[in-house]
Amino acid sequence: MINGEKVLDHPIRWGMIGGGRGSQIGYIHRSSALRDRSFQLVAGAFDINPERGKDFGVSLGVDPDRCYTDYKEMFAKEAQRPDGIEAVTIATPNRFHYEMCKAALEAGLHAVCEKPLCFTYAEAQELEKLADEKGLVVGVTYGYSGHQLIEQGRQMVLHGDLGEIRIIRMQFPFGAYNTPVEQVNGAAAWRMDPKKAGPSFVLGDVGTHPLFLAEAMVPGFEIENLMCLTKSFIPTRQLEDNAFVLMNLKGGAQATSWSSAINCGALHGQKVRIIGSKASIEWYDERPNQLSYEIEGQPVQILERGGAYLYPEAREEDRISGGHTEGLFDAWSNLYRRFAMAMEAANKGEKINFWYPDVHAAAHGVKWVEKCVESAKNGSTWVKF
Amino acid sequence: MINGEKVLDHPIRWGMIGGGRGSQIGYIHRSSALRDRSFQLVAGAFDINPERGKDFGVSLGVDPDRCYTDYKEMFAKEAQRPDGIEAVTIATPNRFHYEMCKAALEAGLHAVCEKPLCFTYAEAQELEKLADEKGLVVGVTYGYSGHQLIEQGRQMVLHGDLGEIRIIRMQFPFGAYNTPVEQVNGAAAWRMDPKKAGPSFVLGDVGTHPLFLAEAMVPGFEIENLMCLTKSFIPTRQLEDNAFVLMNLKGGAQATSWSSAINCGALHGQKVRIIGSKASIEWYDERPNQLSYEIEGQPVQILERGGAYLYPEAREEDRISGGHTEGLFDAWSNLYRRFAMAMEAANKGEKINFWYPDVHAAAHGVKWVEKCVESAKNGSTWVKF
Amino acid sequence: MINGEKVLDHPIRWGMIGGGRGSQIGYIHRSSALRDRSFQLVAGAFDINPERGKDFGVSLGVDPDRCYTDYKEMFAKEAQRPDGIEAVTIATPNRFHYEMCKAALEAGLHAVCEKPLCFTYAEAQELEKLADEKGLVVGVTYGYSGHQLIEQGRQMVLHGDLGEIRIIRMQFPFGAYNTPVEQVNGAAAWRMDPKKAGPSFVLGDVGTHPLFLAEAMVPGFEIENLMCLTKSFIPTRQLEDNAFVLMNLKGGAQATSWSSAINCGALHGQKVRIIGSKASIEWYDERPNQLSYEIEGQPVQILERGGAYLYPEAREEDRISGGHTEGLFDAWSNLYRRFAMAMEAANKGEKINFWYPDVHAAAHGVKWVEKCVESAKNGSTWVKF
Amino acid sequence: MINGEKVLDHPIRWGMIGGGRGSQIGYIHRSSALRDRSFQLVAGAFDINPERGKDFGVSLGVDPDRCYTDYKEMFAKEAQRPDGIEAVTIATPNRFHYEMCKAALEAGLHAVCEKPLCFTYAEAQELEKLADEKGLVVGVTYGYSGHQLIEQGRQMVLHGDLGEIRIIRMQFPFGAYNTPVEQVNGAAAWRMDPKKAGPSFVLGDVGTHPLFLAEAMVPGFEIENLMCLTKSFIPTRQLEDNAFVLMNLKGGAQATSWSSAINCGALHGQKVRIIGSKASIEWYDERPNQLSYEIEGQPVQILERGGAYLYPEAREEDRISGGHTEGLFDAWSNLYRRFAMAMEAANKGEKINFWYPDVHAAAHGVKWVEKCVESAKNGSTWVKF
Repeated sequence: MINGEKVLDHPIRWGMIGGGRGSQIGYIHRSSALRDRSFQLVAGAFDINPERGKDFGVSLGVDPDRCYTDYKEMFAKEAQRPDGIEAVTIATPNRFHYEMCKAALEAGLHAVCEKPLCFTYAEAQELEKLADEKGLVVGVTYGYSGHQLIEQGRQMVLHGDLGEIRIIRMQFPFGAYNTPVEQVNGAAAWRMDPKKAGPSFVLGDVGTHPLFLAEAMVPGFEIENLMCLTKSFIPTRQLEDNAFVLMNLKGGAQATSWSSAINCGALHGQKVRIIGSKASIEWYDERPNQLSYEIEGQPVQILERGGAYLYPEAREEDRISGGHTEGLFDAWSNLYRRFAMAMEAANKGEKINFWYPDVHAAAHGVKWVEKCVESAKNGSTWVKF
Repeated sequence: MINGEKVLDHPIRWGMIGGGRGSQIGYIHRSSALRDRSFQLVAGAFDINPERGKDFGVSLGVDPDRCYTDYKEMFAKEAQRPDGIEAVTIATPNRFHYEMCKAALEAGLHAVCEKPLCFTYAEAQELEKLADEKGLVVGVTYGYSGHQLIEQGRQMVLHGDLGEIRIIRMQFPFGAYNTPVEQVNGAAAWRMDPKKAGPSFVLGDVGTHPLFLAEAMVPGFEIENLMCLTKSFIPTRQLEDNAFVLMNLKGGAQATSWSSAINCGALHGQKVRIIGSKASIEWYDERPNQLSYEIEGQPVQILERGGAYLYPEAREEDRISGGHTEGLFDAWSNLYRRFAMAMEAANKGEKINFWYPDVHAAAHGVKWVEKCVESAKNGSTWVKF
Repeated sequence: MINGEKVLDHPIRWGMIGGGRGSQIGYIHRSSALRDRSFQLVAGAFDINPERGKDFGVSLGVDPDRCYTDYKEMFAKEAQRPDGIEAVTIATPNRFHYEMCKAALEAGLHAVCEKPLCFTYAEAQELEKLADEKGLVVGVTYGYSGHQLIEQGRQMVLHGDLGEIRIIRMQFPFGAYNTPVEQVNGAAAWRMDPKKAGPSFVLGDVGTHPLFLAEAMVPGFEIENLMCLTKSFIPTRQLEDNAFVLMNLKGGAQATSWSSAINCGALHGQKVRIIGSKASIEWYDERPNQLSYEIEGQPVQILERGGAYLYPEAREEDRISGGHTEGLFDAWSNLYRRFAMAMEAANKGEKINFWYPDVHAAAHGVKWVEKCVESAKNGSTWVKF
Repeated sequence: MINGEKVLDHPIRWGMIGGGRGSQIGYIHRSSALRDRSFQLVAGAFDINPERGKDFGVSLGVDPDRCYTDYKEMFAKEAQRPDGIEAVTIATPNRFHYEMCKAALEAGLHAVCEKPLCFTYAEAQELEKLADEKGLVVGVTYGYSGHQLIEQGRQMVLHGDLGEIRIIRMQFPFGAYNTPVEQVNGAAAWRMDPKKAGPSFVLGDVGTHPLFLAEAMVPGFEIENLMCLTKSFIPTRQLEDNAFVLMNLKGGAQATSWSSAINCGALHGQKVRIIGSKASIEWYDERPNQLSYEIEGQPVQILERGGAYLYPEAREEDRISGGHTEGLFDAWSNLYRRFAMAMEAANKGEKINFWYPDVHAAAHGVKWVEKCVESAKNGSTWVKF
């Protein structure tokens, strides 16, 4: 049970790159990090327009002297302070993630980064190596993976409640880009531009979310090979707006993934179903407080977040008892709480006994997109992972 | 509105092959055919054990003299009667379908046949030719295609409510065979035996159902090429118990299919989602009286069977007003009603202005299974359809 | 498992009063009675217009000579035949029920009657006495009470799965009469006319349905006292279009009922929730194949019709396995099957070991309406039952 | 769109009474108040045990010198500081609410108080008068009233989308107290003790929640008279564990309420349905991001929080776009944000153009409980409101 008491010796001194006024994602980073005093927002390069960024930072309570022109200035100036930032969040468009994350690590800073961490697996491996060598934390915000029922799913798999895992179904198909909205919507436009978004649109933008949920719930999830069928249903798009992926997993299980931006009428539809030899579970992001548990031959059971019958690990991050809804912000808060605890442990050279979406999870997502794109380019043929 | 008044000049004189005591499928054929006096059950070869078959037939009200040893005897003897059967239903295990359907057509009988109609597309083409030449009806019982909301879906597609069709998602994944039940269950055993079930288990047994729902709702549905990934999760099985299919359709749409017998905890899960450029619809066999209609940017709408706002074609076969549930038996009754009207029209040499799952639909399903199996055997590579 | 084999020595010879062309309720009576050959439709006075009635009867396959001008003629003429009717269904507007049912019983006929059986409890008691004295069956079509999950609910209560019963919540609130549709719709008009409909609109028209479901599921259900608040939200109506009822039951439980015709946007919403000291169950007529089973402190379970885990009594009337939907017609068919078996047993002077909505159930509903109306007239005060 | 930028000139200096370590409700107060820097937690009397309270306060980041023995000390000492608290939250058991709220107002402090504000309507009126005279804010935490879809409901009613309001159905029936848990659970025990909980258990503990949701959505909601049927299904309880209420509203509408602690298997089940002459809406706290909108004669529509089609007032407090879930914490955060804005406006003597659950809402709830208890004591007869 989380009740707001401090879990760290001191809040992590924290800065942001991007996430300025008008950025929805910027707010959820701040709201989650600042909850329960795990982080303290002391610096920022919030905006490509420095004046606007400073005005915004001040409005957030940041000292105007610590509202910087860009991340380079921030890293340099903060490094000179005894109370300089210890961690930085990168909430900019995709194309800056790699260089900023690398610079942060080189500056000795822990980093929280929006996915994708970078555009190529080679870059990702470089960042993995750097983080490991420096003993620094890189957290990636697969937001719903912090929801307590994901932990419940993981515990059920670990305890053998599902038996041997056979099939994993993942999807994140939304509908909002069923017309060429990118012609009028800037945030949509850069997502469709290979120079700014990387080698993929929906695979990287949404597909890696349920991929990580699956990894979180099924420890040992490892892909043997995959094939991917993509299409731009809006023909002017350079990147795919729909993708189907089939995967053979090591050990004999199979997995499928559906990512879409043209699934008319759907909001997110992020869903993961895990089918075992004894039972299945299914989780759906639009009703995150319920987990369907389906033992073959028995009535379907609806597990509720906060239920006394859940595994203790799935109740640790309860903020309120069952029946009350916890949503996306609560899931993110859990992630940022783990990031903070991991950062403090790293600072102290201590080991942690919990998981979070880390640099390796981020790298795995980048690799998956790369392999999917490779398959799609090769006529949707099978590619070794 | 159907109210039990006669729609035919006289009820079709009808016989059954198989579907004896203990056959669940036999009952739904009879219950549907006999409703509203479109058919009259006058003969049968109900059982491989003739004594048991006769006893059963008598219990159904059939004249004992017209309870036959086998279908050959039935066809021969009935042909000699002035009031002999005009149509026959084939409700036997798969391996007999082809020979019986062929024999029925050759005997000048209309036929209703359980799917699959046969094991190879070559055989299917032969039956198509035979039926066309003889002007006889072959109806295949894709049962839920008779549900009124399938007609509503079809009308919505035809009226352009969905815009251009982009993606069709089909599934029929159940869980009851998650363990080797075939070792103790005879009905399961023959379904897993290639000699008795044909070249596939789940593709043919369940996968063709949502395939036909898609065909029914999307006139012009035509496959360009496909790839299929199958697996027997119970390793002792000779035929696949799970199959994923990806399809490119003519005109640029794409489709996916999931068939399974090891989807733990699921009953049937037969579901079709059709995604257009303007809206999507989704239909689910476990709640058949509701159709989800999702116009991008608007609240999801739940269309109800019997609703006054539905297309007239979707209300024609109402037996009761909206809010009351019509289930599988009502959908089948609608199919048998159309079979009867088609048979009468054929007898009179008249054209019909309605659709039903006919010999070409049956042949299409057989071809689809054949192509899927071919792809799976070729390492799950793409196969031209 | 029902498979269409005969359950009676011979089908009951059966006539209908009312239920002519255009009557929706007439069709469901016929479709249910004629299924599986429990009844044989041999006579009728289908319409207030005898010519139209005869034309309709012939279209149903009835001998034109046995299509009568009115029920009196039918009873008289049929009595003279050796193969005259044994049972009659009354599917006319409410105001005829009492006289016709009484006449049928006096003519030695079993009767199936639409509710309400009559307008006053005194009349109901008279019919109860008559039926009991003559040893005749009166079946009343509380249609959904024939659904298998109602039997499951009954068995759960009887087996103590819910513990001591504490609260029963019943409702049947639909919305179609939210405007004065009776000004243009004849079927609506007579339902609002006290001379034709009796002392109540919604209490009698819909409220007694979930009342009987509760009686069926909770053997021993007995009302101590009740209070009722009614209103005509359309002020020109002489009878109530909305009613709330609170009840104290013998033994200490409590019950509530909500009946409405102005619940905008709702189709039927017939729902019963039974709360016990250990668990609750909830059944809803728009998803009749699922029963919610809620043990305090455990995940909610969704029981499915046809599930192997149900009580054997709840599986006896399966027509198809679980996962397939059975709807209103199947529930009615089960009732008519029981009516037929009860009639045959009565003819033979045998006892039955099953239940059905009988003359006492019908009388109880009439009494309940009478008491509710009395309370409402007395300023919604408590009335002893 | 809320993005964390400051909305006040400075955060309100804030203290807490109660809500110490182990208090679930204390955390949700803090988490909501501290989000987005509307409040600053600077003082507290967190615990009946002062040592434990100080330890807890320090762990929350409060200066140990401002962790007080009790609220009297806190009010006295803080009044002497130039930077003393401006507002206080009362999160203690019910019996202290009245005296603490009164003391706070007398000390010139704004107050946020858990419901019930007090035990009698006379006390409530006293507090109303005091708050009004002093120009101070009293906020009461009817938490879900801050959810955006409640505002949507209100706007729909105000815009006439529902037509004339006819019926309001409210419920909050949970099941966790189906056995005498109060014998082992302290938090349950005081809720059942009239000295500590006031004149009612479930009416006051849960029933006033949906009552206020109804008031928030239906401006002009005014009760004419009511009747209430209560019972303690656990006979050792001094206060009711179940209550049904029927209400006539001014203007001719009717309302019902169900409050329960013995509704086996239900979590909260807080639900409000508002039925108008044109349409109904229904909101359910376990799926708070969906609002059912049911126009008679049209398909049911599911409105989603964040949808672009919602009224602008319902989108003002969006923290994230539609499809993502906002839960109880987000609803509370919205309330505390409004409390803060109201407090600043009160400090400046400015008017506000928004609503929040204020002292009059709190008083209305107290009066409603008082009238319900009066009716129940009088044999569940009608009581003028």
